[in-house]
Amino acid sequence: MAKKKTTKKTAKKRSGKTTGGKKGGGKKGRSRSRASKKKTSRKRETAQSMSKRQRDISISEFFTKNRHLLGFDNPSRALLTTIKEAVDNSLDACEEAEILPDIRIVVTQMEGQEDRFTVRVRDNGPGIVRKQIPNIFGKLLYGSKFHRLKMARGQQGIGISAAGMYGQLTTGSPVRIISRTAKHRPAHRFEVTIDTQKNVPRIQTDEKVEWDCEHGTQVEIDLEAKYQKGRWSIDEYIRQTAIANPHVSITYTTADGKTHEYPRSTDELPAEPREIKPHPYGVELGVLIKMLHSTKSRTVKGCLKSDFCRVSDRVAEEVLDRAGIYVNARPSRIARQEADNLLASLKQTKIMNPPTNCISPIGEELIIQGLQLLDADFYTAVTRSPAVYRGNPFLIEIGIAYGGKLRDDSAVRLLRYANRVPLLYQQGACVISEAASDTSWRNYGLSQSGKNLPQGPAVILVHVASVWVPFTSESKEAIAHYPEILKEIKLGLQECGRRMSIHINRRRRQREAEKKKQYISSYIPHISNALRNILELNEGSEEEITEVLTGVLERSRGA
Amino acid sequence: MAKKKTTKKTAKKRSGKTTGGKKGGGKKGRSRSRASKKKTSRKRETAQSMSKRQRDISISEFFTKNRHLLGFDNPSRALLTTIKEAVDNSLDACEEAEILPDIRIVVTQMEGQEDRFTVRVRDNGPGIVRKQIPNIFGKLLYGSKFHRLKMARGQQGIGISAAGMYGQLTTGSPVRIISRTAKHRPAHRFEVTIDTQKNVPRIQTDEKVEWDCEHGTQVEIDLEAKYQKGRWSIDEYIRQTAIANPHVSITYTTADGKTHEYPRSTDELPAEPREIKPHPYGVELGVLIKMLHSTKSRTVKGCLKSDFCRVSDRVAEEVLDRAGIYVNARPSRIARQEADNLLASLKQTKIMNPPTNCISPIGEELIIQGLQLLDADFYTAVTRSPAVYRGNPFLIEIGIAYGGKLRDDSAVRLLRYANRVPLLYQQGACVISEAASDTSWRNYGLSQSGKNLPQGPAVILVHVASVWVPFTSESKEAIAHYPEILKEIKLGLQECGRRMSIHINRRRRQREAEKKKQYISSYIPHISNALRNILELNEGSEEEITEVLTGVLERSRGA
Repeated sequence: MAKKKTTKKTAKKRSGKTTGGKKGGGKKGRSRSRASKKKTSRKRETAQSMSKRQRDISISEFFTKNRHLLGFDNPSRALLTTIKEAVDNSLDACEEAEILPDIRIVVTQMEGQEDRFTVRVRDNGPGIVRKQIPNIFGKLLYGSKFHRLKMARGQQGIGISAAGMYGQLTTGSPVRIISRTAKHRPAHRFEVTIDTQKNVPRIQTDEKVEWDCEHGTQVEIDLEAKYQKGRWSIDEYIRQTAIANPHVSITYTTADGKTHEYPRSTDELPAEPREIKPHPYGVELGVLIKMLHSTKSRTVKGCLKSDFCRVSDRVAEEVLDRAGIYVNARPSRIARQEADNLLASLKQTKIMNPPTNCISPIGEELIIQGLQLLDADFYTAVTRSPAVYRGNPFLIEIGIAYGGKLRDDSAVRLLRYANRVPLLYQQGACVISEAASDTSWRNYGLSQSGKNLPQGPAVILVHVASVWVPFTSESKEAIAHYPEILKEIKLGLQECGRRMSIHINRRRRQREAEKKKQYISSYIPHISNALRNILELNEGSEEEITEVLTGVLERSRGA
Repeated sequence: MAKKKTTKKTAKKRSGKTTGGKKGGGKKGRSRSRASKKKTSRKRETAQSMSKRQRDISISEFFTKNRHLLGFDNPSRALLTTIKEAVDNSLDACEEAEILPDIRIVVTQMEGQEDRFTVRVRDNGPGIVRKQIPNIFGKLLYGSKFHRLKMARGQQGIGISAAGMYGQLTTGSPVRIISRTAKHRPAHRFEVTIDTQKNVPRIQTDEKVEWDCEHGTQVEIDLEAKYQKGRWSIDEYIRQTAIANPHVSITYTTADGKTHEYPRSTDELPAEPREIKPHPYGVELGVLIKMLHSTKSRTVKGCLKSDFCRVSDRVAEEVLDRAGIYVNARPSRIARQEADNLLASLKQTKIMNPPTNCISPIGEELIIQGLQLLDADFYTAVTRSPAVYRGNPFLIEIGIAYGGKLRDDSAVRLLRYANRVPLLYQQGACVISEAASDTSWRNYGLSQSGKNLPQGPAVILVHVASVWVPFTSESKEAIAHYPEILKEIKLGLQECGRRMSIHINRRRRQREAEKKKQYISSYIPHISNALRNILELNEGSEEEITEVLTGVLERSRGA
């Protein structure tokens, strides 16, 4: 047992200056004055003294200290994240209730406070029942979307309450909510703060109010923020949202009082995605054991059939037979070793891929319609067939706009979407960027150096839709590098790339033919003139010859 | 209020095939068969039906589903992360109790299971008191390091319990712990699982056992894992740990039964870092209000003085005077608006930077000693003075090794450390990489293309030490891009770069002089021969002349 040797005697002043040199600069057995000084004045820690400090950390405290994980690392990003979280929730709620979303965003500067703003987001959604309002806005990790496999914008139950927490932290103000579920019901107004030590909502105000909205929810948050233009601006976020969500109408009033309208371009709601059960290939031992213990079925076979997707009678029997488990065994009686066999057997059995109507794509026509906002020459889009990663279905959509008014002198713009939500930050960390950089764009007529994004007058849109999008952090700005997802994106990019290259080649051939034609036609008058001299014709004949030759050229070049 | 129009009549089969084309590919008012089919069979969602699904999400469930956030996204990374979390905890505990750490890591393949391994990590630390063992290993967000500002490897209280949770999820096994706090006390052995729905430990076994270790802790986890060589291997992690922690002795037994020893190279423990109070410049309104309400002081002045660092009597009085608050006011009576004034006043007042003895650097000599493991020609290191980001003190250390056996034909190797812990993954997302790519290495004799890492036979070590390292995710693999941290790293790199360039230039001049000397000396025999012919000397004189001329050359070139 190596114990600490006493070093008090050898204490030596640490120089604090920088040193550098050749081999042998280090010496063994040095000591530092601060260390030894402290040892004289401080009691040594023991398991007992340490144990007194060990305690629970609440999830709100955790995210307060680590708020960059949620997208609140600086004031301009905080403003965007707050709006994004509120809009995500509004759109999810409207679509679930099959209401065409009307979103109003208002940002106002707080009186006399340069760096503090109020964000108000209002929707015409189904509203929220009174007793759930404080939890949804005043508690992290609370929501309806986490526990099911269904494509939605929100998934964690963190976003909007984290925005409220950030607002409270930076301005001390509570989150203010008004919500109404139907015309014949009252509108409820709440003011809620978060008790970060316990992660529970504290209700400051709870009243019935008059409201000019039949049903819907409005949330208002004061926060420290900064207004920003350009790539990461609110305008850009709304514009990109409009491209992928043509059924949404958004009105945005800036802090300067200007109002921007983004009307919907279709009255058609996207197909409502279905909730699915987990697929056997994606399940792990711990989850399987938990499912066996909490199932409502009374037999293992019943549990497999009802709690998983794509498990038929035949599949269930085959799986149980291979695992050596009796089909009518009580699920809660399955021991760890048996569950392990069951899992192995599940993985060995051929089971259909999960159903894919749980995913609602934007669709090729609407992607092209969205991209037309960009004023290009050429548009193409691909909606790929659904695929599966870790048992979760997902689907890739790609769109490319090329030429026209798009800028020629820089890297192509990449529009990234996850479940119809535009991703603005952390482009470098995202699997979409990797796929786009990893594709050989030179084959498709764009220039590209190394493994970088290609150059050229193009915009590339990539949409990853899934029942569970694997984000690299809670701020949901980049998608993790699952090989299945990478592969699907690359296949989609290649397909769109081929179409673009056909367009680019056709355009190039047209331009070349045009050039050749002009080149030849510049000789025609000289030929006519020479023929006239040789054959001693008059001026009228010369013109005729020119006309005939030009006619021949037109026909032969098919122009 | 725009309501969903019925679309059943216009239902049209979605083609499912890909389409592409020129402008005008989109049409308004389309509909999709799946959407309309579903509408006939499903009840429309309302606020009431949605509210039934809204519920709490436990932090363990959250991280089970998002386990890539914790570094458990694939089996080989999971193995490394598990070992890393266990070693981090062991080293923190040993250092806090002022014990020279002896760490033993054993990885064994589970019998008959190709992809399952058991990891055992054992230390000679102070041990853990019996009642805390289940919480520390069976509960996420539990620990002693989160609530204080002190430099430590662990900070969140997530790591080791997350490793246990991953093990449980993939193998169904509990975490097994033995711990003993002193020779005269019994060793306790626990088997603990995590109830992920509630985030609480479930004790499977709790017994006293015989143990051959006087004090210390041993943790054993079964998990699905993959053995990996190279850059992200366990060996590489331990080697890098040894470089930055010369006081640690590690024994590592691989699954093949081979044992690698990494003995300590110093018997000196690092200076024990001190815990500090928050600095007024880093505090935000919400935190200030919470501190005022929970302080033990009975006056505002007392609260400022005792709960913050660097607030003297004079500073406190100045701050309160400017904020218009009476010095003896009761802290709990301070209203939101007053707190806001207090905060503004704190930011306007000149307050000393936080004390920096809360950070314990590795030190230049030990960095050089560590780098000598690499067999280079030249070593240099810089420990910079502490600086502050968002009120948190931090300190940068840089080391460079150049030449010798280091490879010449690729990008330099970057060794990243945070609080003495090597960071292996996510190099691209880390502020250290940004700083290294953003430095003009051509000035210092390395080749570099664009904003990439330079090329050349060099290894660059960067250590970020802080009371709170801002990681980009819970897996603690990359440091966030705070401008203050970026700047300090770049200054350190430049300083080391200059020293390296002096070495490189000196070497280049030496090589050139050598070349010149050889060039001249090749002429000496000819000169001697010519002189002999002209002066008609004998052979002996010719040799003498050669000798004299060579002597002159040697002296004049100073070789």
